[in-house]
Amino acid sequence: MNNIMDGKKISNEILENIKQELKYELIKPSLAVIQIGNDPASEKYVKNKQKACEDVGIFFRHHYFEDNTSELTIINKIKELNNDEYVHGIIIQLPIPEHYNTKRLINSIINSKDVDGLTDINAGRLVNNKKTLIPCTALGVMELLKRYEIDLAGKEVVIVGKGKLTGKPLIEMFLQAGATVTVCHSKTNNLSSHTKTADIIVSATGVNNLIKQNMVKKDAIVIDVGINFDKGKQSGDVDFDKVSKVASLITPNPGGVGPMTVAMLIQNVMTCFRSKKK
Amino acid sequence: MNNIMDGKKISNEILENIKQELKYELIKPSLAVIQIGNDPASEKYVKNKQKACEDVGIFFRHHYFEDNTSELTIINKIKELNNDEYVHGIIIQLPIPEHYNTKRLINSIINSKDVDGLTDINAGRLVNNKKTLIPCTALGVMELLKRYEIDLAGKEVVIVGKGKLTGKPLIEMFLQAGATVTVCHSKTNNLSSHTKTADIIVSATGVNNLIKQNMVKKDAIVIDVGINFDKGKQSGDVDFDKVSKVASLITPNPGGVGPMTVAMLIQNVMTCFRSKKK
Repeated sequence: MNNIMDGKKISNEILENIKQELKYELIKPSLAVIQIGNDPASEKYVKNKQKACEDVGIFFRHHYFEDNTSELTIINKIKELNNDEYVHGIIIQLPIPEHYNTKRLINSIINSKDVDGLTDINAGRLVNNKKTLIPCTALGVMELLKRYEIDLAGKEVVIVGKGKLTGKPLIEMFLQAGATVTVCHSKTNNLSSHTKTADIIVSATGVNNLIKQNMVKKDAIVIDVGINFDKGKQSGDVDFDKVSKVASLITPNPGGVGPMTVAMLIQNVMTCFRSKKK
Repeated sequence: MNNIMDGKKISNEILENIKQELKYELIKPSLAVIQIGNDPASEKYVKNKQKACEDVGIFFRHHYFEDNTSELTIINKIKELNNDEYVHGIIIQLPIPEHYNTKRLINSIINSKDVDGLTDINAGRLVNNKKTLIPCTALGVMELLKRYEIDLAGKEVVIVGKGKLTGKPLIEMFLQAGATVTVCHSKTNNLSSHTKTADIIVSATGVNNLIKQNMVKKDAIVIDVGINFDKGKQSGDVDFDKVSKVASLITPNPGGVGPMTVAMLIQNVMTCFRSKKK
């Protein structure tokens, strides 16, 4: 099928370019990942990030804290990383155990190293149309559309889900690109009335098979950000087999937005690395 | 007609309550307004703000700069006001002459005194669902809906215009209230296809008579934020005479959102004043 948006392939191209660039650097860029507690999904994501970093030549620093570590201890580590000139990007692997104040921990990361784009000031800079670090999944969605040369001005875009990692930053990015944007979510009464008229649907809910064939206009572009696991098998928000018959372009899941997210994290680290070199 | 949302009356109630509260204060709250150059509309808006402040008992500080003042001089004044414990709110009257960097000037205001809610960090705090200072016009729209006891969860809201003062903050506030939000603007191809199905339309474009009767669903709520002047007479984005025949609630213009904006500015100054007292 040639309507598949091959996130894996594009991700590999981006990562390969970065790998080539880094061959000529004396000092590697460095990403610090804070992990708290033993969430199994977090464990896996941290490993994936480590592999991606090491594959391209980014130095990976893993800072693990037991679930009972005091918030102050973690914040002190973040401050140390903020001030360490050999650290270019810092992320806190989410989710973290509930008894921590996630917002406070995230906002203790200095904006210039916030490669997940989650601090208040970086979120505000995006709203205010300034150059800033943007959450990787949202960046990955936009990069996919760019690679497939989709002109967004005047397009009808429906975003399903209003989370900070995807929905919220995508509102801004699509508006800046001139699209008309509708944001749907769990309280939306008639989701299909919106999706049916959309030129582009981005679904980021984690609800399996939410987007069905009869909810999608012929030749629409469908981007599936959701991640669900059933018996170890990954699927997304979109009923891929059927929706792929009507969509002009569609992301597989896995193999679509997921690999793009990793590539965009690496790209954000590179952005910090390059801007520090200047 | 009893479908008119009487912004003037509600604004007066809010201001009267603040006036009563301030009778018992030794030291007045204080608002500092930076005005640069001689824009006639700015002149008028500054006078309106001064009157509103003085009517309720807020001390008004007017800092006027000639168009040729260096940016550094103005930023130094802002820093002085940031550090002045007797100044509770600071705003820069917009628009300012084009040769200034508006974003840089605004972001030199300390977040805790940013009563226009325009700094990057305050915009980001809103996106990240934190308590923050929010732009007055957007606050005014939400306060009107609250006073008329409109339940927003699941409502179809169409915002026309994506500016920082109204459209952008309203996206966040409506999403937080559980509404489904569509953002239209000058690049939107078929505006009426969106407005026709909306439960609530907020228009903030400054395009006279943009919203016509045949674009509005029966019993929709229509909020007109636009301001246009023709031969000295103010009108809005909405064809009021005709749209008011189909809308269940509608703001007059003038007399709707305008007075609410002033009341919300005063309320933001009070928020800063009260939080400093704690």
